Amino acid sequence: MLAAYLVKVARVAVVSIATVLLGTVQALAQNDPLPSWNDTAPKAAIVAFVEKVTREGSTDFVAEPERIAVFDNDGTLWVEHPMYTQLAFVLDRVKAEAASHPEWKDTQPFKAVLESDMKTLAALGEKGLVELLMTTHSGMTAEEFQTIVTDWIATARDPRFKKPYTELVYQPMLELLAYLRANGFKTFIVSGGGIEFMRPWTEKVYGVPPEQVVGSSIKTQFEMKDGAPTLMRLPQVNFIDDKSGKPVGINEHIGRRPIAAFGNSDGDLEMLQWTTLGEKPGFGLIVHHTDAEREYAYDRNTEFGRLDTALDAAAVNQWTVVDMKADWKQIFPEK
Amino acid sequence: MLAAYLVKVARVAVVSIATVLLGTVQALAQNDPLPSWNDTAPKAAIVAFVEKVTREGSTDFVAEPERIAVFDNDGTLWVEHPMYTQLAFVLDRVKAEAASHPEWKDTQPFKAVLESDMKTLAALGEKGLVELLMTTHSGMTAEEFQTIVTDWIATARDPRFKKPYTELVYQPMLELLAYLRANGFKTFIVSGGGIEFMRPWTEKVYGVPPEQVVGSSIKTQFEMKDGAPTLMRLPQVNFIDDKSGKPVGINEHIGRRPIAAFGNSDGDLEMLQWTTLGEKPGFGLIVHHTDAEREYAYDRNTEFGRLDTALDAAAVNQWTVVDMKADWKQIFPEK
Repeated sequence: MLAAYLVKVARVAVVSIATVLLGTVQALAQNDPLPSWNDTAPKAAIVAFVEKVTREGSTDFVAEPERIAVFDNDGTLWVEHPMYTQLAFVLDRVKAEAASHPEWKDTQPFKAVLESDMKTLAALGEKGLVELLMTTHSGMTAEEFQTIVTDWIATARDPRFKKPYTELVYQPMLELLAYLRANGFKTFIVSGGGIEFMRPWTEKVYGVPPEQVVGSSIKTQFEMKDGAPTLMRLPQVNFIDDKSGKPVGINEHIGRRPIAAFGNSDGDLEMLQWTTLGEKPGFGLIVHHTDAEREYAYDRNTEFGRLDTALDAAAVNQWTVVDMKADWKQIFPEK
Repeated sequence: MLAAYLVKVARVAVVSIATVLLGTVQALAQNDPLPSWNDTAPKAAIVAFVEKVTREGSTDFVAEPERIAVFDNDGTLWVEHPMYTQLAFVLDRVKAEAASHPEWKDTQPFKAVLESDMKTLAALGEKGLVELLMTTHSGMTAEEFQTIVTDWIATARDPRFKKPYTELVYQPMLELLAYLRANGFKTFIVSGGGIEFMRPWTEKVYGVPPEQVVGSSIKTQFEMKDGAPTLMRLPQVNFIDDKSGKPVGINEHIGRRPIAAFGNSDGDLEMLQWTTLGEKPGFGLIVHHTDAEREYAYDRNTEFGRLDTALDAAAVNQWTVVDMKADWKQIFPEK
């Protein structure tokens, strides 16, 4: 009886082992961490870099706390063309607030926004834009602004793709973020965009918590109001996290030099230099928008989202350049 | 035969279960996470708070990403009396650099420092102090400054305790930091001290990585120098992370409202208000220095490290006040 029992146990064991082995084989086959990337040079370069810095005992090994990766947002993680999403937000906010500001009908730059007269708006230049930004981004508490952004981002739609902006994120980059995190990296966003415009949704969309978002900001002021602590948003620029501001923002917020940086324009040049040209060479990557059909195509030959100096620097410094059309199997996530 | 086998299996099982139970009982007895705290009210309040916010399904439950705890540094995590450690650093740096600056012998505020004339130095007031700070904290790269701090903190000794400053940290607070982290909290330092003066050693000493340190800062500038990216430290104040600056710094760096705040002076008042008086009440704690024998005793009745308004606010808002002498079994870590 015991013999029969043992045979049965052994049979169960063999079947179990086989099941486990089969599972492992299937997992290996399925477990491409970057399935939306074609098997071209950029994917190979990413995987080689990650394997190198995570291989214990290797000369290139980087301890986990030092595995800092920084990502630009507009054009690197989500669509920025033909208009930064934050600008769409600004225009919508002016329209939403217009009823309480009858004077805007006759005052620039508000008049141009209300009349959807983009030509006049462009002619008003940076000064007009800053006024619009300050008007729509200040005069409320930090929490009130967070609610405004959260409500807007849930309902606004991109005019070409007819989708929420948070669905116009790049599937290959989502996979890259997850792959890096699975390998002990801490992933940060370092964007020229407003820090408080991004924080309400980056955790849900990218898995990047608010404390790992670096961006441009306006000044805030702490006050006790009727016994309640409030942070009021003031119409004054605090920090511009673009170009040479990016390494400054990285140093202020993170306090360590990243070992990997991902960008898509000249605004990311200094961040890429800071990351890759120190004593320990880091990994640099540029997303080149080459796919007018599935997304957009633009670079040094277009005015928008200028990629010029950074593209030259990529060649000199051996940064990886992603040719969106050739290297990405899929652009956006499936529903 | 099977019966005998089953009996044996059952016996083994019973013995195993007993062993496991015994282990659990022993672990519970040994596993006081705050052994350097006496069993007085503050310890009970801390444990009750942590159990409340981590109990799933309870109305007070806080999801892990929202478990943000902020700690002042000087006087809360390490000794600040009779002189902030960063000021000792400043004075030592002036002395170390004096040979390259012969003019300092006859120029204030340097003359006073070189002659250890603290009375004159005090009379020179804030202007003199700012000049000393800027002279010793700028004019080098971020990395050079990091090396200077690392070297100094390894060799400097507190004059009373004859120990490195990093050994004059409070053992009960080290246990508290670890206890919170073990319960899914992310622990941040939010200090009036220089952010780059703390970051080189906070990870080793407190388990707080550089990206979780918020502090005062000077401006930095990114430059490419002979092909190498550098961040130069400029003699300009960027941000003062004290008093009403603390909620501002918390919002900028963390972007979420903390649910627990720990301080020891009026400089922490606004941080405590911001943390505890919002819609969801957070936990506030003040370390009251009452132990002149083992450490120091000072509060509203002394000029140094003033604890006055915040002590009144603690009573009104039911913040926990630690009486160092009565509530802490041990002040500093054993060697």
